[in-house]
Amino acid sequence: MTQNNAAFSAAEYQRRISATREAMAKAGLDVIFVTDPSNQAWLTGYDGWSFYVHQGVILTMEGEPIWWGRYMDMMGGRRTCWMDHGNILGYGDHYVQSTEIHPMQDLAEQLKARGFERARIGVEMENYYYSAKAHAVLTEELPEASFQDATALVNWQRLVKSGEEIAFMRKAARITGKVMRCAIERAEPGLRKNELVADIMHAGITGVDEDWGDYPAIVPLTPSGLDATAAHLTWDGRPMRDGEATFFELSGCYRRYHAPLSRTVFLGTPPDDMRRAEEAQLKGIEAGLNAARAGNRTCDIAQAFMDVLAQYGIERSGRMGYPVGLSYPPDWGERTASIRSEDSTVLQPGMVFHFMPALWMESWGLETTESILITESGAAEPLCDVERRLFRKG
Amino acid sequence: MTQNNAAFSAAEYQRRISATREAMAKAGLDVIFVTDPSNQAWLTGYDGWSFYVHQGVILTMEGEPIWWGRYMDMMGGRRTCWMDHGNILGYGDHYVQSTEIHPMQDLAEQLKARGFERARIGVEMENYYYSAKAHAVLTEELPEASFQDATALVNWQRLVKSGEEIAFMRKAARITGKVMRCAIERAEPGLRKNELVADIMHAGITGVDEDWGDYPAIVPLTPSGLDATAAHLTWDGRPMRDGEATFFELSGCYRRYHAPLSRTVFLGTPPDDMRRAEEAQLKGIEAGLNAARAGNRTCDIAQAFMDVLAQYGIERSGRMGYPVGLSYPPDWGERTASIRSEDSTVLQPGMVFHFMPALWMESWGLETTESILITESGAAEPLCDVERRLFRKG
Repeated sequence: MTQNNAAFSAAEYQRRISATREAMAKAGLDVIFVTDPSNQAWLTGYDGWSFYVHQGVILTMEGEPIWWGRYMDMMGGRRTCWMDHGNILGYGDHYVQSTEIHPMQDLAEQLKARGFERARIGVEMENYYYSAKAHAVLTEELPEASFQDATALVNWQRLVKSGEEIAFMRKAARITGKVMRCAIERAEPGLRKNELVADIMHAGITGVDEDWGDYPAIVPLTPSGLDATAAHLTWDGRPMRDGEATFFELSGCYRRYHAPLSRTVFLGTPPDDMRRAEEAQLKGIEAGLNAARAGNRTCDIAQAFMDVLAQYGIERSGRMGYPVGLSYPPDWGERTASIRSEDSTVLQPGMVFHFMPALWMESWGLETTESILITESGAAEPLCDVERRLFRKG
Repeated sequence: MTQNNAAFSAAEYQRRISATREAMAKAGLDVIFVTDPSNQAWLTGYDGWSFYVHQGVILTMEGEPIWWGRYMDMMGGRRTCWMDHGNILGYGDHYVQSTEIHPMQDLAEQLKARGFERARIGVEMENYYYSAKAHAVLTEELPEASFQDATALVNWQRLVKSGEEIAFMRKAARITGKVMRCAIERAEPGLRKNELVADIMHAGITGVDEDWGDYPAIVPLTPSGLDATAAHLTWDGRPMRDGEATFFELSGCYRRYHAPLSRTVFLGTPPDDMRRAEEAQLKGIEAGLNAARAGNRTCDIAQAFMDVLAQYGIERSGRMGYPVGLSYPPDWGERTASIRSEDSTVLQPGMVFHFMPALWMESWGLETTESILITESGAAEPLCDVERRLFRKG
């Protein structure tokens, strides 16, 4: 290791690599090619907005990982990865978006040169950045290798956070708190939504004291009224209006770590059904937090929430959360466990979930969510410190 | 068509669909499944931050396109697409990130139900949002269909912009101008980079007058000093320093349309080699703009630039630009033509490129770029109105 520009200690990277190798051994793999930018960063520190071209990390059972990407991005690799510069590899620019040649041909050569022509190779089949074409070319170029789906193999190692990681997430959570308070304070009838989002982003990137804000993996979600019945609409330039609810799903980001949070603001007096739903949701969240303790399972959190909702005659099924931490666009979830009935992941101290029991109804949406840390004992700890309620303004 | 919440006229969507069907007929396809979020929006108006789950557009040779996605996002589809609500389809939440079942099983059912069990189906093999796994499942579920790579089939139809699209890009360009001027004005020794980025984002999202700012598909790239020798590093919290160059690669965004621009700011007095490179670059850009006229080819632009650079003893090969317009993260390029020696796309009026002849040297980077519109006659028109030079401050 020649130097360490990366975010974490050498011991922390070593921990990550050891855990990943254990999982590789269990899966019978000689080598994995990791395309998920979050997994790349988690293993090597690589941090750049270059994931729109093919790149990845080669991890074998010994030695340092190898970062492989576009020639132009090697310099970024040298400046952000902790490995020896000899382990930063680049392919020529003529491969980029060519219809004649494909970067995976270069990767295949790199794997061959290292003796992996007949290896058992794990690839992330279900990842934004491993295209159907990439897989077709790589398997064609390495006909004697055996390929295995290693989707989420690294992601699962990320589920329990280290102390260093939790420290980053607490910083992110402080930024989230600042950002959410900005949104709640500024929201008022007549304010154009894009102006509010501009302030939200400004608050997030400015950060808190020395802790500068990084870009969250999802842009601020801030829909109002009927738009809030849809889960993922982004903003426009229309003014906020009296009599409408707006939900804010936001996250601060500290060096790629997230702590998402949602709150809903009603301009005026909320209708009775929404107030009743608020009460149900808040009690449900309390019950969920209480169920979110080491030894219990993810489905126990969902069940605790649903049980309370049922008492109010509200049916809420589906997914109610997911693990969060290090992430790149387009998603801040880790894509492993889910808080839902069908998932029985056992909770361990150091896991962090975005507990997300939002209610999207016919004519309004009510989002109140928390990023929660599973602790050694007792209920889960919400990382952000924003009052939990439906905010009424005006 | 029940209503039109979408950004463009009915005639404009019809134009797009007709052009795409012509390309499908030429490729011998009965149906395409379009996963690129930009292609989805271009065909249907769909606009939401939901591309982190499987979704797409089914386009056949007749009738309206069909938007297909997560059940939760149907509401967003209804609120942003121009089609009849019967053509907005959703799959259940239990498919999301399940290791047992896959959304492509639902898509296969939808295709079967419409008689495409044995059809010639085009899929975008090389796209961020069409994973290797998605392709494996879809082909397995439709064993009698014949699959064909339709990567960029829709993208190529987007290359020549309509009047309505150019109007959007001019609005984006006005926002870009505002954003870049903000960056240049604010840059000074001691200013923390994240604070500058916060202002840049605020300026962009606020927009210009009635034209509200949307999120650009790439975050602001603003590296300084040695970091600027790398192409794609994002910001941190360190202060700007005297004696360093910072390049700003930024875009305003108006309803998903972009007009990227780069300028470089030097705090203090730039070294001689950078000033010489500035002169070469500016002259090279002039030559490139002059070569960027209807009837010429993309490679002619690259050659014109390289010829000037060669006179200064600077070698610059590789890619120097790409078409821009409608886009979603992680890239604002359209991924069709390239401005480079190996590409001979014939230029037509209405094409817009990010002409991007950046110079990344040993110890500094110099980015001066333009979004250029190919006109009916004469040199290309830069869309933004920011003075073209290396800015010196302090």
